[in-house]
Amino acid sequence: MASSEIEALTQALARLPGLGPRSARRAVLHLMKKRETALDPLLRALSAVSERLATCHVCGNVDTTDPCAICADPRRDGRALCVVEEVADLWALDRARLFPGRFHVLGGRLSALEGVRPEDLRIDALVARVADGGVDEVVLAMNATLEGQTTAHYIAERLERFPVRLTQLAHGLPVGGELDYLDEGTLAQALRARRPVA
Amino acid sequence: MASSEIEALTQALARLPGLGPRSARRAVLHLMKKRETALDPLLRALSAVSERLATCHVCGNVDTTDPCAICADPRRDGRALCVVEEVADLWALDRARLFPGRFHVLGGRLSALEGVRPEDLRIDALVARVADGGVDEVVLAMNATLEGQTTAHYIAERLERFPVRLTQLAHGLPVGGELDYLDEGTLAQALRARRPVA
Ligand SMILES: [Zn+2]
Ligand SMILES: [Zn+2]
Repeated sequence: MASSEIEALTQALARLPGLGPRSARRAVLHLMKKRETALDPLLRALSAVSERLATCHVCGNVDTTDPCAICADPRRDGRALCVVEEVADLWALDRARLFPGRFHVLGGRLSALEGVRPEDLRIDALVARVADGGVDEVVLAMNATLEGQTTAHYIAERLERFPVRLTQLAHGLPVGGELDYLDEGTLAQALRARRPVA
Repeated sequence: MASSEIEALTQALARLPGLGPRSARRAVLHLMKKRETALDPLLRALSAVSERLATCHVCGNVDTTDPCAICADPRRDGRALCVVEEVADLWALDRARLFPGRFHVLGGRLSALEGVRPEDLRIDALVARVADGGVDEVVLAMNATLEGQTTAHYIAERLERFPVRLTQLAHGLPVGGELDYLDEGTLAQALRARRPVA
């Protein structure tokens, strides 16, 4: 009985992570009942992000500017580069204000099973950033999964010939754990105890 | 570190029922990474609903038309009127396609504690609809709470002088239960076993 517009909105919300059909319906109802305080602010915010949405050509972050706010921030220490699999991982580390350097997003991890090869990730771009100089340390902040660690080893090999210190997150990470799901305390500890790649 | 646009979007989403700050951040990230399949469809749906949003002057439902789709549907049996506290209750009953008649949304329930008086609800409008004639049965589908039942009794008194059958949902409803949270089976049973107001 709901109009096609309401149905479309419900479905669009239901596809967001963390929302199902039931909570989407409640959200739509909330939006329609609270036009000034809920619907209009969400519409404005969504429009603003949509208009400015950009992928940073330097680090692969998504933001409303290119370069992203992190790459453009002069207070960031460009000599330290933290390499992560996904944008979500960058956000998790940045949210906790744990890392004062810059980031590099690979856009995934090597996977024989899923057919993800080095050229499918932003690895050449990482090597180019390091080759350009000015980088002293590269933190390999992959997930503590088999594929994450394989990716870290592959990158370590590719960066071997450069005069940079390669480190990785301390393995206080739970085995099989996804970086993005960890609490800030665990992340902070793992980062503090980072060690050279063997 | 997130831009103000991203921060505003995160906050707007975090205020939706069922989403917190953490799931809102994940949703924003999802939207930004999936522009074509997530962000743009949501933006379009939200714009469409925002442009057409209306409160039905007949029944108090929120929809994208006024009268709402239910009031405008000629296949609906206008002789039976189901009175509910909130739009959410109407949606819950309508979603389950349980009631073939029309609805009337009060916009709340009488509450001495919260200072909600009869004139704060759409009760006069309900009496006027019944006074206009053509209504045979009024189903009082209030919540099974003290305030819901007080409201039902008050309305029953106001409608006493009209030649309509007053019924209420069978009290198979869990005591203190909110209509909107019930499964469709319970709702269907309660509606089937509805009985005259004592
Ligand atoms: Zn960047
Ligand atoms: Zn209506």
